Amino acid sequence: MTTAKRKLDHIRICLEKEVEGGWRPFDDLSLVHRALPGIDADDIDTSCRFLGKDLAFPFMISGMTGGHPDTKEINVNLALAAQEVGVAMGVGSQRAALERAEVEETFSAVREAAPMIPIVGNIGAVQLRRGGAEVIDRLAEMIDADAIAVHLNFLQESVQPEGETEAEGAIEAIRSASDLRVPIIAKETGAGISGEDARALLEAGVEIIDVGGLGGTSWSGVEAYRAEERGDLKSAKMGRVFWNWGVPTPVSVVECAFSGAQVISSGGVRSGIDVAKSIALGAMMAGAALPFLAPATEGSSEVVEALRVYRRAFLTAMFLTASKDVSDLRSAPIVVLGRTREILEQRGFSAKKFAVHREMSR
Amino acid sequence: MTTAKRKLDHIRICLEKEVEGGWRPFDDLSLVHRALPGIDADDIDTSCRFLGKDLAFPFMISGMTGGHPDTKEINVNLALAAQEVGVAMGVGSQRAALERAEVEETFSAVREAAPMIPIVGNIGAVQLRRGGAEVIDRLAEMIDADAIAVHLNFLQESVQPEGETEAEGAIEAIRSASDLRVPIIAKETGAGISGEDARALLEAGVEIIDVGGLGGTSWSGVEAYRAEERGDLKSAKMGRVFWNWGVPTPVSVVECAFSGAQVISSGGVRSGIDVAKSIALGAMMAGAALPFLAPATEGSSEVVEALRVYRRAFLTAMFLTASKDVSDLRSAPIVVLGRTREILEQRGFSAKKFAVHREMSR
Amino acid sequence: MTTAKRKLDHIRICLEKEVEGGWRPFDDLSLVHRALPGIDADDIDTSCRFLGKDLAFPFMISGMTGGHPDTKEINVNLALAAQEVGVAMGVGSQRAALERAEVEETFSAVREAAPMIPIVGNIGAVQLRRGGAEVIDRLAEMIDADAIAVHLNFLQESVQPEGETEAEGAIEAIRSASDLRVPIIAKETGAGISGEDARALLEAGVEIIDVGGLGGTSWSGVEAYRAEERGDLKSAKMGRVFWNWGVPTPVSVVECAFSGAQVISSGGVRSGIDVAKSIALGAMMAGAALPFLAPATEGSSEVVEALRVYRRAFLTAMFLTASKDVSDLRSAPIVVLGRTREILEQRGFSAKKFAVHREMSR
Amino acid sequence: MTTAKRKLDHIRICLEKEVEGGWRPFDDLSLVHRALPGIDADDIDTSCRFLGKDLAFPFMISGMTGGHPDTKEINVNLALAAQEVGVAMGVGSQRAALERAEVEETFSAVREAAPMIPIVGNIGAVQLRRGGAEVIDRLAEMIDADAIAVHLNFLQESVQPEGETEAEGAIEAIRSASDLRVPIIAKETGAGISGEDARALLEAGVEIIDVGGLGGTSWSGVEAYRAEERGDLKSAKMGRVFWNWGVPTPVSVVECAFSGAQVISSGGVRSGIDVAKSIALGAMMAGAALPFLAPATEGSSEVVEALRVYRRAFLTAMFLTASKDVSDLRSAPIVVLGRTREILEQRGFSAKKFAVHREMSR
Repeated sequence: MTTAKRKLDHIRICLEKEVEGGWRPFDDLSLVHRALPGIDADDIDTSCRFLGKDLAFPFMISGMTGGHPDTKEINVNLALAAQEVGVAMGVGSQRAALERAEVEETFSAVREAAPMIPIVGNIGAVQLRRGGAEVIDRLAEMIDADAIAVHLNFLQESVQPEGETEAEGAIEAIRSASDLRVPIIAKETGAGISGEDARALLEAGVEIIDVGGLGGTSWSGVEAYRAEERGDLKSAKMGRVFWNWGVPTPVSVVECAFSGAQVISSGGVRSGIDVAKSIALGAMMAGAALPFLAPATEGSSEVVEALRVYRRAFLTAMFLTASKDVSDLRSAPIVVLGRTREILEQRGFSAKKFAVHREMSR
Repeated sequence: MTTAKRKLDHIRICLEKEVEGGWRPFDDLSLVHRALPGIDADDIDTSCRFLGKDLAFPFMISGMTGGHPDTKEINVNLALAAQEVGVAMGVGSQRAALERAEVEETFSAVREAAPMIPIVGNIGAVQLRRGGAEVIDRLAEMIDADAIAVHLNFLQESVQPEGETEAEGAIEAIRSASDLRVPIIAKETGAGISGEDARALLEAGVEIIDVGGLGGTSWSGVEAYRAEERGDLKSAKMGRVFWNWGVPTPVSVVECAFSGAQVISSGGVRSGIDVAKSIALGAMMAGAALPFLAPATEGSSEVVEALRVYRRAFLTAMFLTASKDVSDLRSAPIVVLGRTREILEQRGFSAKKFAVHREMSR
Repeated sequence: MTTAKRKLDHIRICLEKEVEGGWRPFDDLSLVHRALPGIDADDIDTSCRFLGKDLAFPFMISGMTGGHPDTKEINVNLALAAQEVGVAMGVGSQRAALERAEVEETFSAVREAAPMIPIVGNIGAVQLRRGGAEVIDRLAEMIDADAIAVHLNFLQESVQPEGETEAEGAIEAIRSASDLRVPIIAKETGAGISGEDARALLEAGVEIIDVGGLGGTSWSGVEAYRAEERGDLKSAKMGRVFWNWGVPTPVSVVECAFSGAQVISSGGVRSGIDVAKSIALGAMMAGAALPFLAPATEGSSEVVEALRVYRRAFLTAMFLTASKDVSDLRSAPIVVLGRTREILEQRGFSAKKFAVHREMSR
Repeated sequence: MTTAKRKLDHIRICLEKEVEGGWRPFDDLSLVHRALPGIDADDIDTSCRFLGKDLAFPFMISGMTGGHPDTKEINVNLALAAQEVGVAMGVGSQRAALERAEVEETFSAVREAAPMIPIVGNIGAVQLRRGGAEVIDRLAEMIDADAIAVHLNFLQESVQPEGETEAEGAIEAIRSASDLRVPIIAKETGAGISGEDARALLEAGVEIIDVGGLGGTSWSGVEAYRAEERGDLKSAKMGRVFWNWGVPTPVSVVECAFSGAQVISSGGVRSGIDVAKSIALGAMMAGAALPFLAPATEGSSEVVEALRVYRRAFLTAMFLTASKDVSDLRSAPIVVLGRTREILEQRGFSAKKFAVHREMSR
C-alpha cells in the first residue's frame, strides 16, 4: 500500500462512513448569553493575526490531504476558499512529496491558489527525526509555508499493521527544528495533547500547539474501516477498541493553554460556536477539516459558503457574549458541564473559574 | 418579506413543527412534597397583584402575536380568556402597528376584549432606540397598556439574514424610557437573561424582568424551519447551531432574582407546577405562550380551559407544599438537580439553599 | 361514581396499564457485596417482630383493596398467603365499610383467613377527622386489627375532580387517635413523607411511618387513565403533570428514619433486594402492593409463590452482606448513587455515611 | 443434574445468550494520552513475572471449564494458545474431577498442552472446607498447578435451587490452606471483592486476589437462563433480580489493592486497554474468560489470534501512556468518571489521585 493510495482511502471513508464518536465534548460547554450585548454586530472585529498575517477570524482549515494526483483539486478548492474568506490553511502530510517529487504540485498548488494567507506545512514527527531539521526547510519551500506542523499521530500509527511507532527522539527532533526560519506547530491528529506533553513541547521551544483532540474524526475509526475492507480483522478490532482514546478537545485546550502554549483548538470543532467556545477556554484560534471535505470535492464556492457559515456563527457568538473583539471573547464566561467538567476537575482544573468573567485571559 | 407575513409564518411553524429543545430544565426541579399540608385546598389564596391589578394566580399569557389581520382573532381569544380567568396578557411586538396604522386593531382589540386585566405592550429594544422614549407612550395608548415589554431578541435577529443586530445604545434607550407613565419590562425571547444583564437593567431603572429563558420555544429553531422552507441553507444552519443557545429558564430566574429584580419566569413553563417551581426559585410570576396558541386558534373557551388546568395544577402544587398563599410558596423547599444544578453551581449559586425552608423569600 | 366502583377501576387499571414511572430510585442503591459472608445461609434469621407478632421476614403486603364485593376474593387470597408465609398485611381503605355495612365482609374476611398475622386497617386522614378518634376503634374491631394506617393521599385526591382536599386538622385528628388501643401508622400513598412531616407526626404521637414514596404505582397516573376513559381531559392532564410528584422512597426512608420514626419502606419495592436496601437505609420493614395484585386474582398459592421469591431474595441479600439477622443488615454498607444521592445531599444528608459499616444502626 | 452436565449448559448459554450487563464500568476510565511517548513501541517490555514464571504480558485466561468430556477440547485449545502466546491460564472448578476420576483428564490435558506457563487450579471455598487443606495438594498435582484459585461464588450458589450456601468456616479453610506448597488465590466469580473481604483474606494469609468483579459475565444471568429453560420461574426471577449485584471490577481492584493485596483484575476485561486500565488502577495483572470461549470452540489458533489482539492493544496502551515497562504503567495517570467515580468516592477513595502521575505505584 503506497502512502498516496492510503490518502485516497482516507478521503473516501471520511466522505462515506460515520467517522466521529458518539460524544460531542463541545456540547458540554455553554457560553453565557448576554441579552444586552451593548455593541452592534457590524462593529465586531473578528479578525486576528496568525503567523504575521491577518485572518478574517481565528480559524484555519486543518491539514487534510495531498500526495496523490487526485487530491490536488481538493487542496486547490480549499485554498481558493481560504484565500477568499481570509483564513489559514494547513496541508496534509507532505511525506509523499519528499518520496516522490511528482506529487509536489498537489501541495504547492495550495500556495499558488492562496498567495496571501498563512499556509501550514505538515510532516510527521517520525519523518522529521529521520530527515533531520533540514527537511523542515524543504517542506516550507515547497509551499512557501508560514509554519510547519509536526504531527504526532502515534495512535493512528499504532492501529495500523505496519505503523511507525518509533517515538523515541521525537521531542529532540522537534527541539532541533524549533529555531529555524519557519516556526513549528506541534499537532495531534485526534487524541489530544495533555498538559504533560505541552510542557515538554514548550521546553523544546515549540510555542504553538494544535491540540487535535478527541471528539472529531477518529483516525482509529477510519483505520478500522480500512482494515475491515481488506479483511484484516485484527487491525479492525484494534481500531475499534481505540476509537475513543484520547484527551477531549476542550480538556486539551485548557491543559495546553494553562501550560503557556498558544493553542489551536481542533478535533470536533463543528461550528463557529465551537470556535468561540475554544477561545473562551483559552485557545488562540480553532481549526477543522472534516466539515470542509465534502464541499471541497464539489468546488471552492461550496467551501467558501461553509467557511462563511462558520464565520457568521462565530461573529454571532461574539455578539451574544458582548465581545467586541477576539480579546474580549477570551474572558467571556463559559459554563463547563458533564463529563468534560468531570475530567477537568479530576485533572486539577476548577471549571468554575471559567463560568464568570475573568479579568485576564490567561 | 413583510413583518406581518413573518408573523403568520411564525404561528404556522409553532403550530406544526417541533420547536422546543430536547431538554426540559424544569424537570431538574422537584418541590418537596408535604404529605400533611395542614390547610384546606379551598382556603388557598392563589391570587397576587401585578401592575396594580389583581390576578387569579401569578400568571400571564406571554406576548405572541399581532400585526397581521389574521392574528386579531388569536389575540381576541387569548384576551377574552385572560379576562375570564383573571390573568395578565402580553401582546406580540407592536412594531407592525407603528409602521402600518391599519393593523393597530389587531392589538387594540385585546384591551377591548379584556378591560380589567393587566395588558403588556411590546416593542423591540432596537425599535425603542430608534423611536425614542415617546414611542412607549404611543404603544401604551394603543392598547391602554399597564406596562410595555421591551424585548431583547438579538439571538433571533442574528440567525435571520437581515436581522437587526444593533445592540449598542439599547440599554440607554431603556434607561430613557424607565421613568415614563407605564413601567418597562425587559424581556428576552428564549435565550434568558444572565445576572450580568439583570444588574445592568436594574441600574438602568428597570424593575421587572421577564427572563424568556432557554427550554421552551426556540426562535432559532423556528427561523431554521423558515430558512429551510425558502431554501436558505446558510440561515437554516445558523438556526440549527444556535437552537439551544442561552441561559436555561430556572437558572435565569435565580440569577435575576438574586440581582434584586422582580422576575417573570418564562421559557418552557408548561404546567402550573412549573409556575410553582418558578416562584419557589424566586420569581414573582410566570408566563407561557406556546401552550395557548393552538387553543387560541379554536376559541376563547379552549384557552379558558387550558388556563384553568394551569391554575388547578398551580393550586395543587401550593396545596402539596403547604403554601397558603403565594408568599408561602416563595420559601417552599425545592430540590435542584442534574444539569440545572451543575450550571447554578458553576455560576456561583448554592443549589442546596433552595432545598430547605428559607426564612425569607429573598 | 361510588367509592366501591372506583375501587374496581383502580384494580383493573393497575392490572392492565403501565402505572409506574420511568425512574427506579432503588436502582440508585447498591449493597456492598461480601464475597466471604462468614455465615451459612441456612443459619440466617430473617424474622422480626411487628406489632407484637412474629414475621418470617420484615415485610407486609401493603393495603390494596376492599369495599366492593368483587374485591373480597383478592383480599382473601392475599390474607391466606400472608398467613402461610408469615408476613403482615394491610387492607385498602375501610371507608366503604363505614358507609355500607354490607361490604364489611370484604375486609373482615382478611382476619378470618389470617388469624395469626399482624393486620393493618386503613382509613383516610380526612375520614378520621370527620369521624373522630372513635372511628379507629370501629375499624380495628371490624378486622381485629393490630394497627390502623391513616393514609395521607392528598395528591391523589387533588388530581380527582371531586377529591377531598381538606388537610386542615388532619394532624390534630391523628394526634387525638394516637393513644388508643391500636397504634396508628401514618401512611402516604405514593408521594412520600418528608422529614418535615415526619417530625410533625412524631410530635403528634405517631411512631410508625409507612413512607409510600415515589417510585412505585403512581396514583396520579392511575387517575389520569381513569379520567381519559371518562373523557375528562382536564383531570387527565392533571394526573399526567403530577405523575412523578413526590419524595422518592429511599429518600423518604432516610428522612423519616433520621427524624426518629419506625419506618415502613414502600413505593417501588419490587424485590427482596429492595426490602434489604430499605433496611440498610434505616427502615424497620418494607411493603409492596402492585406485585401481588395479579397473583391475587389467580389464587393464594400464586401469592405465596411471589412472597417466597421476595423472601428468598431478601435472605440472599442478607447472606451476601454477611447479615446474620435483620439487626446486622441495618448497619450493612450501602452505596447511594445518581439522582437519589443528589437529592439526599441537597436535603442535607451525607450519602457517604451509608457506604461504610455503621457501628449503630441509627 | 450432574456437575458435568451443568458445565455444558453454562458453556452453551455463554455462547448463545447475552450474559453481560448493560453497564461497562471500564468505559468510565480513561488513560491519559501521551502524544509524545518518548519511546519506541518496539522497545516496550510488556512482560511480567507471575507465580515464578515469565509472561508475555500480565494476563491470564481465567478459569472457564472442565469436568465433562466435551470440555476437554476447549481447555486444550486454550492451553495451547496460552502456551504459544505466553500467558497464564486457569481451569474451571476441579470439583467434578474430585468426584469422578475419569474426567481428570479434562483438566490434566491443560498442563500437557502448556508445559511452561503458570496454570491455576480451581476449587470452591465450600469444597475446600469439606475436603480440608489436603485437597489443595491433590488438585495441584492433577494439573501440576502453580497456584490454586479458591473461588467464592456464593451469589451464583444462592440463585440456584440447590446451591451450596454454607459460607461459615470458608475463611478458616482458606487460612488452613494458605501455607501449602502452592499458593492460594482468592477469586470471586462476578460479584467482586470489597476492601472488607480483602483485609480478611490478607489476614488469613492469602496474598493474591482475583477480583472477579461486576461488569462481565453475570452468573446470575446465566442461571436465570438455565432456570427459564427448565421452567423454574422462581429461580429465574432470582437470577434476574441479582443480575447486577456486586462490586464493579475497577472499584474492586482499587479496594483490594489499597488493602495491600496483589490483584488480578477480572470481570468485564474486554480488551488490552482494559488490562492496562486495571494495572494503572493498581492491579498486578488481568484476566478474562468469555472473549476466549467462542474462539476455543474453533481451535487454538483462533485463541492465539484473540490473545494477540489483547496483547497488541495492551502494548499500544502502554506506548500511548509512555510506559516502557509494566512498572511504569502502574503510575500512569488515569481519569475515573461517572458511576465508577461516584462509587469510589462514596467508599472513601479519592478518584482524583489517579488522574495524575503517582510517584509510587502503591
